[in-house]
Amino acid sequence: SKDNMGHGFNHVTSHFGEWIHLNVGGQQFMTTRETLTEKYPDTMLARMFSCTDGLSWQSKADETGAYLIDRSPVYFEPVLNYLRHGQLIIDKGVNPQGVLEEAKFFGILPLIEQLEAAVQDDQPITDGTPLT
Amino acid sequence: SKDNMGHGFNHVTSHFGEWIHLNVGGQQFMTTRETLTEKYPDTMLARMFSCTDGLSWQSKADETGAYLIDRSPVYFEPVLNYLRHGQLIIDKGVNPQGVLEEAKFFGILPLIEQLEAAVQDDQPITDGTPLT
Amino acid sequence: SKDNMGHGFNHVTSHFGEWIHLNVGGQQFMTTRETLTEKYPDTMLARMFSCTDGLSWQSKADETGAYLIDRSPVYFEPVLNYLRHGQLIIDKGVNPQGVLEEAKFFGILPLIEQLEAAVQDDQPITDGTPLT
Amino acid sequence: SKDNMGHGFNHVTSHFGEWIHLNVGGQQFMTTRETLTEKYPDTMLARMFSCTDGLSWQSKADETGAYLIDRSPVYFEPVLNYLRHGQLIIDKGVNPQGVLEEAKFFGILPLIEQLEAAVQDDQPITDGTPLT
Amino acid sequence: SKDNMGHGFNHVTSHFGEWIHLNVGGQQFMTTRETLTEKYPDTMLARMFSCTDGLSWQSKADETGAYLIDRSPVYFEPVLNYLRHGQLIIDKGVNPQGVLEEAKFFGILPLIEQLEAAVQDDQPITDGTPLT
Repeated sequence: SKDNMGHGFNHVTSHFGEWIHLNVGGQQFMTTRETLTEKYPDTMLARMFSCTDGLSWQSKADETGAYLIDRSPVYFEPVLNYLRHGQLIIDKGVNPQGVLEEAKFFGILPLIEQLEAAVQDDQPITDGTPLT
Repeated sequence: SKDNMGHGFNHVTSHFGEWIHLNVGGQQFMTTRETLTEKYPDTMLARMFSCTDGLSWQSKADETGAYLIDRSPVYFEPVLNYLRHGQLIIDKGVNPQGVLEEAKFFGILPLIEQLEAAVQDDQPITDGTPLT
Repeated sequence: SKDNMGHGFNHVTSHFGEWIHLNVGGQQFMTTRETLTEKYPDTMLARMFSCTDGLSWQSKADETGAYLIDRSPVYFEPVLNYLRHGQLIIDKGVNPQGVLEEAKFFGILPLIEQLEAAVQDDQPITDGTPLT
Repeated sequence: SKDNMGHGFNHVTSHFGEWIHLNVGGQQFMTTRETLTEKYPDTMLARMFSCTDGLSWQSKADETGAYLIDRSPVYFEPVLNYLRHGQLIIDKGVNPQGVLEEAKFFGILPLIEQLEAAVQDDQPITDGTPLT
Repeated sequence: SKDNMGHGFNHVTSHFGEWIHLNVGGQQFMTTRETLTEKYPDTMLARMFSCTDGLSWQSKADETGAYLIDRSPVYFEPVLNYLRHGQLIIDKGVNPQGVLEEAKFFGILPLIEQLEAAVQDDQPITDGTPLT
């Protein structure tokens, strides 16, 4: 995946569009409307922040202008990074099942598939029955 | 548990009810009154934040309007996530015994049972005596 | 320790006494005067925050009203939790020796004993001499 | 690498130039223009914050004067430390692949090479085919 | 090291001198001038914050009065704790090499020696050649 190197500068430039401030379960995140809506336009996040569908929802910001989302900030972070660069990256200490719950909640289908495989790999086999 | 996917958008909509700001041991959490009261109405959290019983307690907010709770923020987080989506998810580095103390404190019975099993699995057997 | 379940609501009620804001090494903690003074009245924390002895010390708060303590916030957290519910709970990634230093500093004797055992368990045996 | 000891004081002195405030994905970082631009002048970060090329970009700060970058704060931290002292240092719990994505994004070539090796070392071999 | 117990109260008393607010790479730390200057007076930190030598440097605080230091907050924390109580304590997930870089930067000689040993212990031997 060396081929996504060097596009960085343009990427930043394209981010100059519009910044979105999220308050996820009490923690602050900053990202752009493009990150939330462009790559996976069929997800709930994309619908929430698209200029046409999302209008009614946009009034649900807190007093600092941050959009409130009642979910776990710890498990939301890898989801947001996935939207930023298309890679699923989870730290060793972080439970992939937590990230899977967020991917399901936001309806990001390709991420759900990757996470279900990661959860399977992560869990010890508890009985002797071979997987088929 | 693929079946709780896709309900996300409605879930967010239903969250538009009322936001609750918690200050747990010094850390800020944001959630909704529905999350704290609806799924497990018999817990202490539900009673604290229900519209009828909780009225007297609601005056105990700090100067920013956050409700103060004298408990560990680290171990409260998985408890809040459980109330959000009904799954117990703990990171590898987090001691399930700490989460169990919070579940007991808030009186969330199904979570206590799951956590007691998790604590048992987590502890190494220190002598050769079989458990009976 | 199932027997400390259910007392939660009363516990919160009793916490309505007085909130204490601590600034430990730069991180904010919220707790109550009861937590700091009642269970272990012979510790330094209890003396610092007792209504009679602690008066002179109480002027040492910062501009937000938080009491400044020049110690590690990471290792103070399990100590504060111990004062909250009487259980020593340390995450796997956290070095028990760090918590032991705080327990010594604040002079919480039963916690020191537990932590010295935990440090011993945590350390690999570096020579072949059997422990006696 | 004992030879970079003792230069500390001069290093701090040279940092007195100009402080840069970054908001990376919602988390605050403080560093200096020298750290971002001097050691690796061909990277995107250097171009973004160099006095000549970076002028147009510098207007993209938030209301507190922090430059907004839509990337992961967790994985940006080792990248910034690398620019500070030239060492790649990653905690055990942090996935090197996440840091690699940031190094690629910012175009820091020597760091990319080190991280690709670290990612290789970190991944378990999933099939029996020998690497050639 | 039970012998440093009980001195806690005096220690706090002696801390009542003067509080120092540090902003290390964007994270806030609180400590006292005594902690930074007394135990190891030959280090860069001691010189930076001693009343005589440090005067010129003291004007380099940010708008909140915090002294800005362009280093990693994660690895600075164990260094500051070392200055507080003279023990090197690192969590399992934290890379000792990162702490070593900070100890070198600030020129704390006894800490450097301990950390170089810790780094050696931490690194797997990658080839069969015996160290000489």
